[in-house]
Amino acid sequence: MKVTKFGGSSLASGKQLEKVFQIVVSDPERKVVVVSAPGKRFAEDTKVTDLLIECAEKCLQNQNPKEKLEAVMERYAAIAEECNLPDEVIQEIYADLVNRFESDKSKQDRFLDLIKASGEDNNAKLVAAYFRERGIDAEYVNPKEAGLLVSAEPGNAQALPEAYERLYSLRDHPGILIFPGFFGYSEEGEVFTFSRSGSDITGSILANALKADLYENFTDVDAVYSVNPYIVKKPKEIKELTYREMRELSYAGFTVLHDEALVPAFRAGIPVHIKNTNNPAAPGTRIVNERDNTNGPVIGIASDEGFCSIYVSKYLMNREVGFGRKLLAILEDSGLSYEHTPSGIDDVSVILRENQLDEKIEADIINRIKNELHADEVKIEHSLALIMVVGEGMRHNVGTMARASKALAKASVNIEMINQGSSEVSMMFGVKEVDEKRAVKAIYEEFFAAVTV
Amino acid sequence: MKVTKFGGSSLASGKQLEKVFQIVVSDPERKVVVVSAPGKRFAEDTKVTDLLIECAEKCLQNQNPKEKLEAVMERYAAIAEECNLPDEVIQEIYADLVNRFESDKSKQDRFLDLIKASGEDNNAKLVAAYFRERGIDAEYVNPKEAGLLVSAEPGNAQALPEAYERLYSLRDHPGILIFPGFFGYSEEGEVFTFSRSGSDITGSILANALKADLYENFTDVDAVYSVNPYIVKKPKEIKELTYREMRELSYAGFTVLHDEALVPAFRAGIPVHIKNTNNPAAPGTRIVNERDNTNGPVIGIASDEGFCSIYVSKYLMNREVGFGRKLLAILEDSGLSYEHTPSGIDDVSVILRENQLDEKIEADIINRIKNELHADEVKIEHSLALIMVVGEGMRHNVGTMARASKALAKASVNIEMINQGSSEVSMMFGVKEVDEKRAVKAIYEEFFAAVTV
Repeated sequence: MKVTKFGGSSLASGKQLEKVFQIVVSDPERKVVVVSAPGKRFAEDTKVTDLLIECAEKCLQNQNPKEKLEAVMERYAAIAEECNLPDEVIQEIYADLVNRFESDKSKQDRFLDLIKASGEDNNAKLVAAYFRERGIDAEYVNPKEAGLLVSAEPGNAQALPEAYERLYSLRDHPGILIFPGFFGYSEEGEVFTFSRSGSDITGSILANALKADLYENFTDVDAVYSVNPYIVKKPKEIKELTYREMRELSYAGFTVLHDEALVPAFRAGIPVHIKNTNNPAAPGTRIVNERDNTNGPVIGIASDEGFCSIYVSKYLMNREVGFGRKLLAILEDSGLSYEHTPSGIDDVSVILRENQLDEKIEADIINRIKNELHADEVKIEHSLALIMVVGEGMRHNVGTMARASKALAKASVNIEMINQGSSEVSMMFGVKEVDEKRAVKAIYEEFFAAVTV
Repeated sequence: MKVTKFGGSSLASGKQLEKVFQIVVSDPERKVVVVSAPGKRFAEDTKVTDLLIECAEKCLQNQNPKEKLEAVMERYAAIAEECNLPDEVIQEIYADLVNRFESDKSKQDRFLDLIKASGEDNNAKLVAAYFRERGIDAEYVNPKEAGLLVSAEPGNAQALPEAYERLYSLRDHPGILIFPGFFGYSEEGEVFTFSRSGSDITGSILANALKADLYENFTDVDAVYSVNPYIVKKPKEIKELTYREMRELSYAGFTVLHDEALVPAFRAGIPVHIKNTNNPAAPGTRIVNERDNTNGPVIGIASDEGFCSIYVSKYLMNREVGFGRKLLAILEDSGLSYEHTPSGIDDVSVILRENQLDEKIEADIINRIKNELHADEVKIEHSLALIMVVGEGMRHNVGTMARASKALAKASVNIEMINQGSSEVSMMFGVKEVDEKRAVKAIYEEFFAAVTV
C-alpha cells in the first residue's frame, strides 16, 4: 500500500487534477491520497493558502475580507467548472468558509490556523468529489474522525503518539481515501496546523501509521538535483539518497521536502519517492535508509547565505571549565540560536543566522561577553555562506576533503571555516557570501564532472 | 635590560653553573637572573624538586624523610664543592630546610608548596654565592621583600596586579640580582607556588614588571623545532615565531616553555628568546609579536594523543534552542573539560582528553544525554590524536587546507575531524592515534621539504 501526497501546484487547476487522477488510478496500491491546497498555476499566481492568510488577517484587523474571500472561492470554482463538478461541491465549500469566518476570534493564532487549514480541507472534499465524478470509489477523510491528534501549538503542531494508533484503522476502509494535509485536531477538538508546507508531514505520518510500503511525494520537479540549478546549469539528478543525506542537504537550501516530514517515514523505515506530477514517467528520486554508493563520495552540494560569526578569544580559555557553556547561555538569553562553534585553542567562533541580530543585540552580547567572560577580543563577521558537501560515500573515504579544498583553492576561494567530523556524511565549508556561487561551482565540477549519480 | 632565566638542567652541576656565569657576565644587559632548582644531570637523575616532593609526602605520612632529605643536600653540596663555595652556604641551606620541615603541617598543600619552593629559593642563594665567589656583585633577592605577591592557591598561584608595581623598584638595585623562580608570597606572607615548571612564569612576570627589553629563557635545546624530533629526524629549527603560534603549538605537545609563562611577556610586548645554555652561540628561537612570514604558510606542526569524542545525534537537533548548552552542562556536572565541539546538522561531537573518563563516568553521561536530552544516538570513540598545523602565514592563504589534506590522503590517513576557522593561524586535524606519526610526517614533508624556517 502506498500513501501518495500531491503538492499545491499539482492541484492548482482542473487540468492538474486530471493528471493526479490518472496517476492515482494507474496503480491500485495508491490507496491514501494526501492533498495540499491549490497552489500557483503560473509564476505570478497566489497560492490559496496565502489568500486565506490575507483574509484571516483582514478579519482580525476588523477589515472586510470579502474581496480576498472571493478570490479564494474563484480558485475552487474555476477547478470545479473545469472538472464539471456539481454546484453543491462549491456551495459546501462556501458554507464551510463562512462558518469558519464567523467563529471565535478571541485567540488570534487559533483562528488563523482554522482559516489556513480550510485550504487543504476543502480541497480534499473537492478532489474526492472529482474522483467520484470520474466513477471511482473515493471518500474525503475528516482528520478529526480519523484520529489525527496533534499538540495544541498554533502553526507548529506535532502529531501525538496516539494519532499513529488511531489512524491505523484507515487501512480497513474501502476505496480511495482523500486526506487533507497540513493540520490535525487537538484533544479539545480544535484545529492546529503544522509548520508551513506541512502537508508533507501529514503524508509522512499517514505512511508511518498505516505501515505503508512507500510514501510518494508528487511535486513539480523531475528529481532532486545534486546542486542548485540556479548556480549550476542542468545539474545531475539524484536517483537515490538516504534520509540522512536528504536532511543534511535540506539544511542549506534543498527545499523539495519539508524537514520534519522525513521523521515519521524515517522512523518506520518507509522509503520516500519524490516524483513529478507533470512527468510521472520520470524515475524521480528515492529517499531510503541505505543505498549503494558506487558513484563517488559526494551525492549533493547545498549552500545557504545569511550567516555571521561571533569570534571570541581569551588567552588560556582552553583551561577554563565552563567557558563554552557560559558563552552559549549568553546567546540563549538574547534568544539567539546558533548553528556551529568551531574552536581553536584560545578562541571560539559561534556561527549563527544573522537575521537574528540587530545593532542593539550585537552591542549587548559583545558587552556581556567582554564583561562577564573577560574575553580579550570579541568581533562579529557578517555575510558568510555555508556550503554543505554531502554523501554517504565520504564516510571513510580518504581524500574527499583534499579534493574539495583543492577545488576551492583553484577557484581562489578562501575557506573561512571548516566543520567536519561530527556528521560522517557531510563536510561544511564557511566562505564569504561573495564567493558562494564560485565555491559551489568549483566543488560541483570536482565531484560531478564525469559522474552519473 | 634583560631578564634571563635558567632552567633546571642549566643549574644541575658546578660545570653547568660555570656556563651560566659566563653567559650572564658576557652581556651587561643581563641584570636579573631567574633560577630553577637543580635539575637532572643525566637522563636517569632525579630533579631536586621531585626529591623535595617525596620528602614532603613522607613527612605528611608521618614517615622519616631523612634519606630523601640527604639526597637533596647532597645535590647542593656537590655543586658547592665543585664551585669551591664556603661551607656556610650549605649550612645555611640545611638550616633553611630543617626550619621548613619543622613548620606547620595542618594545611598539607601549603606545607607542600613551602617545601617545593625551597628548591629554587636555596638554589638562588647558592648561585648568588657562586657569582660573588667569582668576584661579581650579585645578590639573592627574596621574593617576599621584592613584592612578588600571588593569590593563595596552592600549586596554582597567580601573580596579583600589585606585584607588578612593587617589583619595578628592583630596577634601581645595583649589581646582578639572582631571583628564585616558581613561587611568590600571599598577602598573609605564606609561600605559594605556580604550577609545575613555574620558574618560566617568574621570569616572564619580572620581565613585564621591570619593563625589560628582552626575556631570555635558557634551556637545553638549540631552538624550538618545527615538529617533534621523535617523529621527524632533524627537523627544521624555528628562528622566530609569534606568541600566538607558540601558544597554539604548545597546546599539542610543544613543551619548551610553560603556557602561562607567555602571558606577562605577551601583555607587555616583550620578546622572548629561547636559548641553549650548552650552546649559547646558537641563534635560538625568538617569540615576538609580529614576524615576517616569507617562508611559507606553516611554521610548526604539533600533535598530541589521548583524546576521545562523544558523538550525539538527534533528528532536528538543529532547531532545538539550548541543546548545546545543556549538553555542555551535563559534561561540566561530571567535572569534564572539553576541547572542541565540531557539529553537523543534527549531530555534535565533543572532543575531550580521555584520561578524564572511566567506565562509570562514560555510562553516566551516555545515560544522561539519552534520558535528559532525548538523543537518538550517543557513542564514544577512543584513541584519537589531534594535529595542530600552525602558522601566521596561513591567515589568508588560499590552499593551505588543500595541501595539508592532500598530504594526509596520500599517506592514507583518514581525517576524523577538522576544526578550522576560529583561529586564523592554525588548523586542527583529528586522526586515529595509530595514524598520528604518519600524518605528522606527511604534513611536515608537504610544508617543509624545501623550506628554511
